Amino acid sequence: MWGGRFAGGPAAIMRRINASIDFDRRLHAEDIAGSKAHCAMLVAQRILTAEDGAAIIRGLEQIQAEIDAGDFLFREELEDIHLNIEARLAELIGPAAGRLHTARSRNDQVATDFKLWVRGTIDRIDGAMAALQAALLDQAEAHAATVMPGFTHLQTAQPVTFGHHLMAYVEMVGRDRGRLGDCRRRLNDCPLGAAALAGTAFPIDRDTTAAALGFDRPAANSLDAVSDRDFAVEFLAAAALAGTHLSRFAEEIVVWSSEPFGFIKLSDAFTTGSSIMPQKRNPDAAELVRAKTGRLDGSLVALLTVMKGLPLAYQKDMQEDKIPVFEAADALELCLAACEGMVRDMRPQIARLREAATRGYSTATDLADWLVRELGLPFRQAHHVTGAIVKRAETLGLDLAALPLVELQAIEPTITKAVYDALDIDRSVASRNSYGGTAPDRVRAAIAAARKRYCR
Amino acid sequence: MWGGRFAGGPAAIMRRINASIDFDRRLHAEDIAGSKAHCAMLVAQRILTAEDGAAIIRGLEQIQAEIDAGDFLFREELEDIHLNIEARLAELIGPAAGRLHTARSRNDQVATDFKLWVRGTIDRIDGAMAALQAALLDQAEAHAATVMPGFTHLQTAQPVTFGHHLMAYVEMVGRDRGRLGDCRRRLNDCPLGAAALAGTAFPIDRDTTAAALGFDRPAANSLDAVSDRDFAVEFLAAAALAGTHLSRFAEEIVVWSSEPFGFIKLSDAFTTGSSIMPQKRNPDAAELVRAKTGRLDGSLVALLTVMKGLPLAYQKDMQEDKIPVFEAADALELCLAACEGMVRDMRPQIARLREAATRGYSTATDLADWLVRELGLPFRQAHHVTGAIVKRAETLGLDLAALPLVELQAIEPTITKAVYDALDIDRSVASRNSYGGTAPDRVRAAIAAARKRYCR
Amino acid sequence: MWGGRFAGGPAAIMRRINASIDFDRRLHAEDIAGSKAHCAMLVAQRILTAEDGAAIIRGLEQIQAEIDAGDFLFREELEDIHLNIEARLAELIGPAAGRLHTARSRNDQVATDFKLWVRGTIDRIDGAMAALQAALLDQAEAHAATVMPGFTHLQTAQPVTFGHHLMAYVEMVGRDRGRLGDCRRRLNDCPLGAAALAGTAFPIDRDTTAAALGFDRPAANSLDAVSDRDFAVEFLAAAALAGTHLSRFAEEIVVWSSEPFGFIKLSDAFTTGSSIMPQKRNPDAAELVRAKTGRLDGSLVALLTVMKGLPLAYQKDMQEDKIPVFEAADALELCLAACEGMVRDMRPQIARLREAATRGYSTATDLADWLVRELGLPFRQAHHVTGAIVKRAETLGLDLAALPLVELQAIEPTITKAVYDALDIDRSVASRNSYGGTAPDRVRAAIAAARKRYCR
Amino acid sequence: MWGGRFAGGPAAIMRRINASIDFDRRLHAEDIAGSKAHCAMLVAQRILTAEDGAAIIRGLEQIQAEIDAGDFLFREELEDIHLNIEARLAELIGPAAGRLHTARSRNDQVATDFKLWVRGTIDRIDGAMAALQAALLDQAEAHAATVMPGFTHLQTAQPVTFGHHLMAYVEMVGRDRGRLGDCRRRLNDCPLGAAALAGTAFPIDRDTTAAALGFDRPAANSLDAVSDRDFAVEFLAAAALAGTHLSRFAEEIVVWSSEPFGFIKLSDAFTTGSSIMPQKRNPDAAELVRAKTGRLDGSLVALLTVMKGLPLAYQKDMQEDKIPVFEAADALELCLAACEGMVRDMRPQIARLREAATRGYSTATDLADWLVRELGLPFRQAHHVTGAIVKRAETLGLDLAALPLVELQAIEPTITKAVYDALDIDRSVASRNSYGGTAPDRVRAAIAAARKRYCR
Repeated sequence: MWGGRFAGGPAAIMRRINASIDFDRRLHAEDIAGSKAHCAMLVAQRILTAEDGAAIIRGLEQIQAEIDAGDFLFREELEDIHLNIEARLAELIGPAAGRLHTARSRNDQVATDFKLWVRGTIDRIDGAMAALQAALLDQAEAHAATVMPGFTHLQTAQPVTFGHHLMAYVEMVGRDRGRLGDCRRRLNDCPLGAAALAGTAFPIDRDTTAAALGFDRPAANSLDAVSDRDFAVEFLAAAALAGTHLSRFAEEIVVWSSEPFGFIKLSDAFTTGSSIMPQKRNPDAAELVRAKTGRLDGSLVALLTVMKGLPLAYQKDMQEDKIPVFEAADALELCLAACEGMVRDMRPQIARLREAATRGYSTATDLADWLVRELGLPFRQAHHVTGAIVKRAETLGLDLAALPLVELQAIEPTITKAVYDALDIDRSVASRNSYGGTAPDRVRAAIAAARKRYCR
Repeated sequence: MWGGRFAGGPAAIMRRINASIDFDRRLHAEDIAGSKAHCAMLVAQRILTAEDGAAIIRGLEQIQAEIDAGDFLFREELEDIHLNIEARLAELIGPAAGRLHTARSRNDQVATDFKLWVRGTIDRIDGAMAALQAALLDQAEAHAATVMPGFTHLQTAQPVTFGHHLMAYVEMVGRDRGRLGDCRRRLNDCPLGAAALAGTAFPIDRDTTAAALGFDRPAANSLDAVSDRDFAVEFLAAAALAGTHLSRFAEEIVVWSSEPFGFIKLSDAFTTGSSIMPQKRNPDAAELVRAKTGRLDGSLVALLTVMKGLPLAYQKDMQEDKIPVFEAADALELCLAACEGMVRDMRPQIARLREAATRGYSTATDLADWLVRELGLPFRQAHHVTGAIVKRAETLGLDLAALPLVELQAIEPTITKAVYDALDIDRSVASRNSYGGTAPDRVRAAIAAARKRYCR
Repeated sequence: MWGGRFAGGPAAIMRRINASIDFDRRLHAEDIAGSKAHCAMLVAQRILTAEDGAAIIRGLEQIQAEIDAGDFLFREELEDIHLNIEARLAELIGPAAGRLHTARSRNDQVATDFKLWVRGTIDRIDGAMAALQAALLDQAEAHAATVMPGFTHLQTAQPVTFGHHLMAYVEMVGRDRGRLGDCRRRLNDCPLGAAALAGTAFPIDRDTTAAALGFDRPAANSLDAVSDRDFAVEFLAAAALAGTHLSRFAEEIVVWSSEPFGFIKLSDAFTTGSSIMPQKRNPDAAELVRAKTGRLDGSLVALLTVMKGLPLAYQKDMQEDKIPVFEAADALELCLAACEGMVRDMRPQIARLREAATRGYSTATDLADWLVRELGLPFRQAHHVTGAIVKRAETLGLDLAALPLVELQAIEPTITKAVYDALDIDRSVASRNSYGGTAPDRVRAAIAAARKRYCR
Repeated sequence: MWGGRFAGGPAAIMRRINASIDFDRRLHAEDIAGSKAHCAMLVAQRILTAEDGAAIIRGLEQIQAEIDAGDFLFREELEDIHLNIEARLAELIGPAAGRLHTARSRNDQVATDFKLWVRGTIDRIDGAMAALQAALLDQAEAHAATVMPGFTHLQTAQPVTFGHHLMAYVEMVGRDRGRLGDCRRRLNDCPLGAAALAGTAFPIDRDTTAAALGFDRPAANSLDAVSDRDFAVEFLAAAALAGTHLSRFAEEIVVWSSEPFGFIKLSDAFTTGSSIMPQKRNPDAAELVRAKTGRLDGSLVALLTVMKGLPLAYQKDMQEDKIPVFEAADALELCLAACEGMVRDMRPQIARLREAATRGYSTATDLADWLVRELGLPFRQAHHVTGAIVKRAETLGLDLAALPLVELQAIEPTITKAVYDALDIDRSVASRNSYGGTAPDRVRAAIAAARKRYCR
């Protein structure tokens, strides 16, 4: 009758769907740290004897050593990291191990472990983001005056500098770091002591355990403490947005590396060949960075979906919080390292960039601004006149700077030859020295300010 | 200068982000099957000699045997399953191995492998869905006349039968199977021979390779053949919707298992205890099924996001297609097995169901219908009268069936005592014998029809 | 005490959150059609008198006329389209209006209406997709032999033809039409008669109403019939994937329109200017098509999220099904029209395409294939030799075709001057005449086959 | 030839896809405020004359008055809110209107407008969240000692108080407010003056405009300023998580309102009837709150998808930022108001809650803890003993408190009758007075602390 589709029947299915040790073993260090803090507090509160406490700490330290050495046997039938460690503790120290779980539950234990893991990951990612900013700043400094075409709609818009362009990403990554920092600050209250959901009648001291684990305070509501996965969702949202930024940068690397653009070159370190086309030098790393936004967005959706409509307090559904977070953290760390690598590796093709910046009537706005500033035309009218000039230039197949004065005057008689200054791309770039603008001096000032802010 | 954050620098980063062998090794059987078909065709077309062909086939079969035996060493530096197998083939048979890649590329190779994998997975999942339907049908048959409250808005609406309720899921799963079948049919054209993107100048015979691999035809456009991941997205969409159905069923199991409902009992096979609360019997399997919708939805979003805005033809981004599909397929298979298991395991609490069905004025619609049918009231007026009667019953704290005739007549004087027949829940259920309705005979007929349709 | 944040208090909040008339008025024609079919059946089954039936039909037709004329007053306090129409019917024909709701509920009514709407929308979108295919086929035919660089990783790979490239999209849209067709076929069973959730005791004839409304059959389970929104999810999934295809095409239009590529030109009809930069001609329509994938993916996620974990049968949550479907349908129709427009509008820049196809060592694969075919090298060795030749050409700053024979022979002594034939891009393209390949004759054959299949 | 599917051809399609006035008119007040600040700065910097400046300000104020009065004609052919206002300004004050656009672009203008709108919306939503917290606090205070069953896995776990349960939501909403506050702080640098993408050569003063519009500072990089939509994504992520919290609360309301639970009653203000079942009182508002998570998650996915892989700087894709934000903001505001309303409206059914709390062996943990505390058993052993006792109680069909001492001692001989104190639900609740626990005094202290923190 039983289809037997799943060899082993109900028991095998239940073990497979229920066990989390395959992935939550990654929390082992945090689980042991949490248990040590809990144990020390139980002793201090005289809920445990000093002897039991010492035995437990010793046992936990030995387990950590076994795991570090790769000698620990993780067993699926013990479900999760908590029971695997507790079972080993019992083997090592006997019945005293059974006293460790006093005044706590797996519900507050896993919330504590996972918060500690996310917190540590945020710190690591923050470092990787700082390293990416440093790489961007170095390249931006080297190319603070390297002219390139600025695009909107991927159409040539106005000349900018390569350094200025890279600095936009320094800003984005700066906000990403801010978001992760806010997430870290907000997650930093300690669930330990919430027990199953209602708190405990044992005279525990939650301030002590919170402090021992580096938390700012104990969580204020025990039901919330065990039902809350905000920190994981907020981390995933920050990661998804950071990944979106990296996907934009990666797209630019791919486009810039294409033959028609040829704006940058990547070395063999970040490109690969083809199994069939011997000439290929594919920007695989950039493409994979771009693609991994998918994983990041998907992870965020996964956890939001899991949490939708869950009644309080702990539901087993929440065990599905870890894989999306682990996968997203790994993907983001890898993407940050790859981007840092590509930034340091890329060689802007200065001549090609300059040549592209002169095409596409990139100084048309400068011309319009000149008409406003020098001739006093209202901007809308200046815009109109410039449009007519561009049209004439297109007809003649000439750049703006190559258009004879007589042609300009045929459209707007009061134009003088002083206008040609405005059509030079270096002057154009240098003139845009409003705060945040692309003038090389502005860019250098922005680099200095960013170094001060982000590279401590 | 180089931050050194990623030990090993660019090379290590690139290897980590670029290599896919960790996950695409799962395609080994499909890859070998594809290579064998390609090789046989090359020989038949005289592109390869018979000797080389025979050596290649022998080598591939040995590799398959090595993998089956767990003796094959997958190497990260060889990037992916294709190069791992080809490198081993070269070790085994020498330079002839280098002739196998004639007239193909990794681009058409991986598309073929992955289609074969998805196709096989669809077949396996279809079987699991059929098994779930069989379990539902068995339970539905056993409870075709077991009365329970039907809910809308989780408010008692009208009595239905437990079997009728389960049959709704047979319908849903039936549509899921239909969707997967359509996906299978649509994916079944063969990319092999598209080569890198443009087809090939070698005189290959794509019909032969397509047929050898069980495809209906070769893919019609070589650019599309290597850029297309529709089959994976469509599979994920079908899986997400199937998972949504299972999440609904899982939610019902959780709610039905709660103490206030007490509609069903699950055995220990599908429940677990608590580390702190000794009395608990938690429906973990159901909760995890409900939660895994998150993974499924997230996988779908991941791949849709990856594919957004990718120019033709193959982009490395598309390597990110496999993990979401593998994870979703595994999650769905596990959920189907768990649901089948729970359906067979659940014991409906017949007395509790019946008792609940009598509460909540569940036969109010029957009363309204009686007023229409027997007294000729327009439905809207009957609805109004019934509302007044329910209100009176609430005030008196009585069920409808317990309300004295005089009370009924105070509201609608023409009501006779024949009305009480309409208020009986068994009669209510039996009366709803419109096609698709909850009358036990209808339910049994629906079960018979479904067995014929779904259980071949 | 009541914050009064929402002027009007609970009543206003409830009306705002509960009423759907703002958006479900869009279902008016379907609602009236459903009511007419239901009414006719009630009369035929003698549940309604012929007089009442005639009055109801007359009333419904007048309401349709009022709506068509813009004279119908939709009222928020009547919640939804069903009650708005029924209330107006009562004004027009008196108490007989109250008999129409016999043996049905809003639950089956709205499911029927919405299925009818989705079905009609699928038909309309199928037409728009056919029109897009027709436009692609016309352009493909005109440029079946126009050579352009084929890209993988946005790196020049091999020469292909513009027509061949466009034909990839004909394939994608063909699959999209297939998916929508499958969705249409699967949705086409009729919920009417499921009533609230349990069926009805009235002697209705569901086959008649199903047939009258163009359904293939009545839905088989009344609980499922009112709880099912698969058709909407499946439509959204098909729309999201179709939108993904269009986003890929839109990306290509944006990249191709950029100054460095310059592969196509769009007329003013599909580009816009800038408020500040007078020279701009931005491919806004393509960018918006690319962006609207966001709306489509978001709509799919929205409805999947809504449906997650909903117990049977109807839940008010399901009212949130319409806005995502309406928005997605509108977005997709608009994108299809814009793409058709852009395909017809675009002018491939033939000289630029050809010139780009000669760069990037695009015939390196042809060289490798020549070494295999003419010199008998294993493909892997040929690939290696070609790589060395490309490297030499790069060092000398020459195209492959411009490399002196002596240079070639320095790397592989057996190469003869016959090799230069293989390096010509027209010959390269013509040689790839495997099924699905880029050879112009193959492309023309593919166009003919597609016209036959898709343009009836 | 042109399919004519879209009446009006390319022009109509382009207008429909390109125009944003239908939705961005919602930014009118922000657009006018931005223009006034820009104008005042231009005058102060002597880029505009005082006369022109005064005319522009007067004109803008008149336009605001016209919009407020409903007299302003929004025209689709003018595309967006910016051009609609500028065109009207030209009608009102003549050519001087054309000087307003000096040193700015629509790119920095729309970024500024939209940031102002999101900032104002955050403030409004923060108020609605504070109001919801106030309502929760009032109910929590009234029911700080009302005993109910606490659930994990929807299985009875331990007794808690209704007030304690509600306070979990006060915490969640508190974090939501924190996230929105962080988003507000981070978004608060001003894009105005970034111009199209490169800054401007006019001697503008960005600090002045930033201050005038309530920003903390001007944005530091002009390319980033116009390409950044982080603030919108971050707002949507915060909204999606807030909506997830509300969906959990809504789910609880739905479950608690069901007949088998009967934990709370909602008045007619937040429930509705049925068109067919006269007895129904459906928690529609709660269901719709639960459902609107779909809209919120979908909006987040929509914008993340839009932004994926966009090169710098402004792309027209970014016009698709507004609809998801508008829809999400409206949905969230409505849901907050509905939840506040339901919290104030709900009447906890005290007797039913208490009765439910006594069932399900809810004090089993208290028994285990008693065995640890009083008999010195290790927790794991105590857990085991308690499990045996529960099993015995189940067999006898008795509650724990009703189990004779002899039965207890048959399992653990050292148990004394003092144990019965631990089995009382009021004592159980009172005993859990660890920080954050459910003891009524703790709950009251938590309420007081939350009032201080959140209700200023």
